[in-house]
Amino acid sequence: MYGVILAGGSGTRFWPISREQSPKQLQKLIGTGTMIQNTVQRLLPLIPIEKLYVGTHQQQAIETLSQLGAYKFSPDHLLAEPCSKNTALAIGLMAKILADKNADAIMAIFPADHVVSKPENFIKVLQKAEALAKKDFLVTLGIPPTRPETGFGYLNQGSKLEDSEGVYQVERFEEKPDLSTAQKYLEQGTYFWNCGVFAWKATTILKELQQHAPDIHSQLETLMDCLQRSSGKLDHLELNDKGCELFSSLPSISIDYAVMEKSSNVVMISSDIGWNDVGAWNALDEVCEKDSMGNILTGNVLARDCNNSIVHGNNRLVAILGLNDMIVVDTQDALLVCAKDKSQDVKKLVESLNEKGKSEGKLHATVKKPWGSYTVLDSGPDFLLKRIEVLPGEALSLQSHQHRSEHWTVVSGSAKVDRDEETFHLKVNESITIPKNAKHRLANPGSELLILFEIQFGNLLDENDILRHEDRYGRR
Amino acid sequence: MYGVILAGGSGTRFWPISREQSPKQLQKLIGTGTMIQNTVQRLLPLIPIEKLYVGTHQQQAIETLSQLGAYKFSPDHLLAEPCSKNTALAIGLMAKILADKNADAIMAIFPADHVVSKPENFIKVLQKAEALAKKDFLVTLGIPPTRPETGFGYLNQGSKLEDSEGVYQVERFEEKPDLSTAQKYLEQGTYFWNCGVFAWKATTILKELQQHAPDIHSQLETLMDCLQRSSGKLDHLELNDKGCELFSSLPSISIDYAVMEKSSNVVMISSDIGWNDVGAWNALDEVCEKDSMGNILTGNVLARDCNNSIVHGNNRLVAILGLNDMIVVDTQDALLVCAKDKSQDVKKLVESLNEKGKSEGKLHATVKKPWGSYTVLDSGPDFLLKRIEVLPGEALSLQSHQHRSEHWTVVSGSAKVDRDEETFHLKVNESITIPKNAKHRLANPGSELLILFEIQFGNLLDENDILRHEDRYGRR
Repeated sequence: MYGVILAGGSGTRFWPISREQSPKQLQKLIGTGTMIQNTVQRLLPLIPIEKLYVGTHQQQAIETLSQLGAYKFSPDHLLAEPCSKNTALAIGLMAKILADKNADAIMAIFPADHVVSKPENFIKVLQKAEALAKKDFLVTLGIPPTRPETGFGYLNQGSKLEDSEGVYQVERFEEKPDLSTAQKYLEQGTYFWNCGVFAWKATTILKELQQHAPDIHSQLETLMDCLQRSSGKLDHLELNDKGCELFSSLPSISIDYAVMEKSSNVVMISSDIGWNDVGAWNALDEVCEKDSMGNILTGNVLARDCNNSIVHGNNRLVAILGLNDMIVVDTQDALLVCAKDKSQDVKKLVESLNEKGKSEGKLHATVKKPWGSYTVLDSGPDFLLKRIEVLPGEALSLQSHQHRSEHWTVVSGSAKVDRDEETFHLKVNESITIPKNAKHRLANPGSELLILFEIQFGNLLDENDILRHEDRYGRR
Repeated sequence: MYGVILAGGSGTRFWPISREQSPKQLQKLIGTGTMIQNTVQRLLPLIPIEKLYVGTHQQQAIETLSQLGAYKFSPDHLLAEPCSKNTALAIGLMAKILADKNADAIMAIFPADHVVSKPENFIKVLQKAEALAKKDFLVTLGIPPTRPETGFGYLNQGSKLEDSEGVYQVERFEEKPDLSTAQKYLEQGTYFWNCGVFAWKATTILKELQQHAPDIHSQLETLMDCLQRSSGKLDHLELNDKGCELFSSLPSISIDYAVMEKSSNVVMISSDIGWNDVGAWNALDEVCEKDSMGNILTGNVLARDCNNSIVHGNNRLVAILGLNDMIVVDTQDALLVCAKDKSQDVKKLVESLNEKGKSEGKLHATVKKPWGSYTVLDSGPDFLLKRIEVLPGEALSLQSHQHRSEHWTVVSGSAKVDRDEETFHLKVNESITIPKNAKHRLANPGSELLILFEIQFGNLLDENDILRHEDRYGRR
């Protein structure tokens, strides 16, 4: 069985830790790794890394690959989508890729940013799902509800499938209910949460798409022809310009709505797997360990007289006093203080940031790049100070700037600097100046992280003032 | 009449804006200036700057002088105390200074960090106080109470003074009452808050000290002999080593307790001056304007569904959601989130920071120096990045470091750098390296602020690794 991890989060619900360019699945919120790392880790006992695929927005491709590097994930198993088109299109394209590779391929679909607190049960359920998928069923996992949740879709259990413990026909897919309906569902005992985990043969889902979503299915072949390995060093799958245009023109629709609600071929496994979608900051209450006062405190926190509160901080001191049911999230450039029962509205805060044209809704102070990252530490009318980290073996593009000169000082590791016709090797405590318009390239030839401070001078200090003459990551 | 401003705050109640080395009177909390600037501004219609004196802890001398520079305050009117000894000793020494200068001197005493929202009434009350002081009274201002406050001392009004509207003998000084007593005081209508503003002849208070606090009075002459202009450029009044030792050995006692409670010579002016001691963060509610939701929001704040909350921020984005009666104070290195009704306990938070040996209770990220300031922006195991600001015309000491080299890059203004036998003039975008053990001095010869980034390298990066060969501010 192949695993397909859909990593398409938008980054608004866990703001300011998550941002548009760095959504929830790339964050470390619970457990030892980031959400997507935890998702991979959970699958490995059943699905080897060679059989895992990931679909994500192209903005997150670099960071996703970097996070999955530890598992020896193959970059060409990552499909970078040019825009967010919900699940049907991504699943269709992945099914096509897998069916082309192996006509009998069975694929399971996993959201990248959920929690499963009973991983052994999860594996058993997936084994059962694989067996059912072999029989051409569309298999879904149904989670026994524990509260009248209005934020999820529901599965209404039909008749029990012969010879299979806990497996049912699905009578109906129900969309997110209102509270009184959700209460009825909970009492009735035949309704389950739809957790977005599915399993089926690639050829089966393609047939279903052909029948129920022909507008999508009819374009998959063309999209396949537009797939290419990304230029430069990254080496993931992406669409060429024609493919991007086509992809963008197709309907944005969920697989639930496109296929599952319409198919008569769906079965459900009642799944006691400790599932949680961790939908907002207050959901940490359900999945994290608490101290004796009911608090979940991460970072450099000093608490006094606080109960049932969540602090997600870092190095900076966060002192909290007399808080009840509050959430405090501290990042370098933005702070959130939120009543726990308003967690769902964090999304609206981010919307209003975006409306005001503020970058804090989209970008972190530390911006990830294929070669490493940079962080703006200080700025003035005509200067800007950045901390730049270059990963071992990586290099920035050969570039020049029209409006600024730069002064670099290495503080950790070593740097190789090309500047016009010359090449310099800089060790710790050595500096170099890059004049305006000089063609230059910064590389880390060593085996440890290169850290340097860049001081920019000029009357226009803008990320767009960069003329790339050559780039190993294929950027223009 | 002379004015004596006592600026001896401890910096714990308005943490993290105020710190031990930068207490409340030096902070901008309300109105246009810092608390001490507002205090001076309020007095100027009655007392010219040449007649104002300030007593403060030596740690705050530099910043206090810098803040009062705008008013052309004379540095030798600032008395830097080697340690905090409450009000009796400071007032006694100031009285001695003024009596030596002018045998008929009348002096009024003002806390540096209170608010007076009716400044015109205040001036009228002070004129009345001056007239009464001339008649050898110890004059106090009594504030009609508006709530059963347990945090203040009270004055119990005695018989009315003939011919003086609103002036009474003081029957008794009462210490901070418990709540039921405070309620009785409020109902009774003859109790007033003791706001710490006094007026008297210098010779009168000296006589009273001689009678009621002879242990202090008997040492004033010796302390006077130990007074000196501070060495170097600062030029304020300080005690020599012998004086510091004597000062430190004397009792720490308030003028209220040492004299006022014991003297039969005290009168009180009922003072409707809009007084507020701004004792903790929640007091801003009483002295600041609020928006339509009852919030007081300062800085880069985005609020949604928040009521009656206080945010004191700066450039960093603070997003608040669903807050009621909360306080959020954001500074570069420390954040406070506090329920409004716990404001008084901020003090305890700071105590526990100090107990844990954390510097955030005492020092700001930006550390003020006589020549300007520095801010640590980043650090690693063997490097440290500082932003250094040097005021026009100022210079650091001629110094050397045993354990670190430094690399400076000017980003605003210009620098004169002495390095061993050489002198360099650096403009914007120019750098210099200072090797270990090189004698060096950084100066700002220009008329605008010098800003530079300093990158330190070494295996011991410590403020104490500084060997001063020469210092214009008299530091060793």
